[in-house]
Amino acid sequence: MKKCDLHDVIDAIRENYEESDEIFFTDPSRRMPNRNVVIDILKDMRNIMFPGYFTDGAQSTPDASYFVGNTVLRVEYKLTGQVREALHFRDGATMTSDEIEERAQGICSAMLCKLPAIQKMLYKDIQAAFDGDPAAQSKEEIIYSYPGFFAIWVYRIAHELYKLDVPLIPRVMTEYAHSRTGVDINAGAEIGEYFFIDHATGVVIGETTVIGNHVKIYQGVTLGALSTRGGQRLAGVHRHPTIEDNVTIYANACVLGGETVVGEGSIIAGSAFLTESVPAGSRVSLKNQEVNVRVVDNRPIDKTKANVELV
Amino acid sequence: MKKCDLHDVIDAIRENYEESDEIFFTDPSRRMPNRNVVIDILKDMRNIMFPGYFTDGAQSTPDASYFVGNTVLRVEYKLTGQVREALHFRDGATMTSDEIEERAQGICSAMLCKLPAIQKMLYKDIQAAFDGDPAAQSKEEIIYSYPGFFAIWVYRIAHELYKLDVPLIPRVMTEYAHSRTGVDINAGAEIGEYFFIDHATGVVIGETTVIGNHVKIYQGVTLGALSTRGGQRLAGVHRHPTIEDNVTIYANACVLGGETVVGEGSIIAGSAFLTESVPAGSRVSLKNQEVNVRVVDNRPIDKTKANVELV
Amino acid sequence: MKKCDLHDVIDAIRENYEESDEIFFTDPSRRMPNRNVVIDILKDMRNIMFPGYFTDGAQSTPDASYFVGNTVLRVEYKLTGQVREALHFRDGATMTSDEIEERAQGICSAMLCKLPAIQKMLYKDIQAAFDGDPAAQSKEEIIYSYPGFFAIWVYRIAHELYKLDVPLIPRVMTEYAHSRTGVDINAGAEIGEYFFIDHATGVVIGETTVIGNHVKIYQGVTLGALSTRGGQRLAGVHRHPTIEDNVTIYANACVLGGETVVGEGSIIAGSAFLTESVPAGSRVSLKNQEVNVRVVDNRPIDKTKANVELV
Repeated sequence: MKKCDLHDVIDAIRENYEESDEIFFTDPSRRMPNRNVVIDILKDMRNIMFPGYFTDGAQSTPDASYFVGNTVLRVEYKLTGQVREALHFRDGATMTSDEIEERAQGICSAMLCKLPAIQKMLYKDIQAAFDGDPAAQSKEEIIYSYPGFFAIWVYRIAHELYKLDVPLIPRVMTEYAHSRTGVDINAGAEIGEYFFIDHATGVVIGETTVIGNHVKIYQGVTLGALSTRGGQRLAGVHRHPTIEDNVTIYANACVLGGETVVGEGSIIAGSAFLTESVPAGSRVSLKNQEVNVRVVDNRPIDKTKANVELV
Repeated sequence: MKKCDLHDVIDAIRENYEESDEIFFTDPSRRMPNRNVVIDILKDMRNIMFPGYFTDGAQSTPDASYFVGNTVLRVEYKLTGQVREALHFRDGATMTSDEIEERAQGICSAMLCKLPAIQKMLYKDIQAAFDGDPAAQSKEEIIYSYPGFFAIWVYRIAHELYKLDVPLIPRVMTEYAHSRTGVDINAGAEIGEYFFIDHATGVVIGETTVIGNHVKIYQGVTLGALSTRGGQRLAGVHRHPTIEDNVTIYANACVLGGETVVGEGSIIAGSAFLTESVPAGSRVSLKNQEVNVRVVDNRPIDKTKANVELV
Repeated sequence: MKKCDLHDVIDAIRENYEESDEIFFTDPSRRMPNRNVVIDILKDMRNIMFPGYFTDGAQSTPDASYFVGNTVLRVEYKLTGQVREALHFRDGATMTSDEIEERAQGICSAMLCKLPAIQKMLYKDIQAAFDGDPAAQSKEEIIYSYPGFFAIWVYRIAHELYKLDVPLIPRVMTEYAHSRTGVDINAGAEIGEYFFIDHATGVVIGETTVIGNHVKIYQGVTLGALSTRGGQRLAGVHRHPTIEDNVTIYANACVLGGETVVGEGSIIAGSAFLTESVPAGSRVSLKNQEVNVRVVDNRPIDKTKANVELV
């Protein structure tokens, strides 16, 4: 194997920077938000909302009262800094530093204002998880260890920042949850109260999805677009489905398309594949799906109809 | 954007604590186990069982003999502490501190007693992975890097703690594995020897599942309940399937329901959806699944029957 | 509960070491590569290729020029060390230390030589992601936070080490990406330019898969083997499919088998299950899949044909 000249390697890498200046930062003041700080902000917010669950020392709610104020102030400081970077990154060419600073402070203030309402909303999500999962032993267990709840918690915060038109940070947050839980909820999705995701892994909820109240979904469910062949021309188009109140969607089902509405109270069976609307109260299953059962050792052949009807 | 008063935010968050006293800790002595310590315990147990794989220094088995004793004692200390917290959390209102302490020590002792047997069982799981995966280059590679083996290892430990009626900790352990591997095995499931999960991501094995020996499953397989609409009324009910010895279940198949038994030696094809029992020796595939192949550029239409039969 | 004697536990664990000497290291000089160092190498390579994205300080490309040289040298040092361990682990019985050292240096040099070309290839993957995802706001966002791009980046590095016949390390790298993203790309797969994986979780790409240029796949797609019942006898056999240029494969579709070729420009619908070849320009969908829609509250029954045709 011939020895490679490292100087040539280093020069070639540098030259690559020049060729792709679109994705590189020639302006030293332009930088990405810091992912670790963004995750710290999420953790601080979680400690504020659920004291005693994720901290080492005892943190009963009387104690928590002392630390809430301090932690909110720390979140304000760090979040303002990260939002400032993100705005500068996107808008640095069109806004002055003063305008960016003012806007960052306004966004951060608006976000903090929302925290108590998000906290209340999360209590309802906990209730939905407890009511929906026979394996849940307590509500505390859900807060402490359920990945579906983790993903919803991160989404509810990221969604507020998305509505405040913050670049990059909502995506960093939802991808942090995605990495930990396998649940990919785009921060742009609209999701109502009492939402529960069981088993979590493989769930995808697209950017323009609308979900009502008391909806329950399982692992592997996709709420997606019919086709993305339009690429960037589809940016902003409503291309994901609408799920009305009290709908349950079982494991690995796909519901696709911006015109698709799943009516109130419907139940979608596992592995169903739905690309058209269904009215309220529907029970959707694959029709007459048959499985072929062949017994190999000369025993008589047995056929079992595995109708997917679950209800 | 109007500036938000942080004092109002802080007060609102505090008020939320009062409203939801069910999930908050008004008693300062009541706290959750520490997730980081629980994960440290798992890592120590892994180093005991597989010396040299996950430690920085060289740790051949002669060297390991020195450190095993020390590490077992450390595990005893840390595990007793965490079990104590978990019992106090659940039973603090009905048991005295002395009773909790005695029970924690008994549980910890019983758990440590099981370690050598779990270690032996894991050797069999490694053998199953090596026999089952043509891409495996060595058994060491499986221990060192296979996510399916990681999830089984954590499950086998969590399952013993589940049987010893330890609250919270088994769930923390299995969710740790879930987060790292995408495999969600409830600690309550019963799983026999020589178990192998290939590719891992998206597997869900429910709380009351029973799995025999020499079973092999692939990514995305769900062994689940038919419906969880009964919610907490279903707690403790046998609602997940029974998989007998020598069964193989290919990618993304679903087997659902507490009455469903997959007979010995059966093979379930990928993406199959099964809600009824099949006898021993069955070959289960979707019946006559046809894919529609349309060639777009005026070439003649070609239809291919993609029967799901794999065997 | 009877108290367990820890000395017996410790002795039993030590005895287990003796029984399974196949997987234990009786030679103190034989050890696994260090996973943390392998991950550090990946992170250094990423900082070289994408300066400013994953480091705390500002790192515009003019600044980057200073640090590239330094980081390349550090990668050379650490990678040579890890490759040496891995070679010694596999070949220590048949090669001298000098031979291993020479081979490790040769591999490391060859790998570093490839870095600029891998970097260029990744720019094309970024372009493919931006063109393919209407929710992408910028190319920077893709580098910074897209899990599919993360998995491809790790794969492209691991694949070069796989081709250089390095044991263990490619698997550690791809399993690191698998754990973070839910994407399991075997380092042995051959993947062309402009590759995009959207939503990522649950994707499996087997060891002998061949993928052309401009291919786009979605979450949950398996490119797998038809059956692995042959176990280790199948090692090295071409058992995974070939995907030609410009193919799109939607969510949760399975394409299986070493004889299966998906012709150029084909589109495979979501949840399709394909085990035979299809010609260029095919549109593959489940044929006449019907979903059964039953409305429960005495409203008239409505049936909707959910043909999976997406195009």
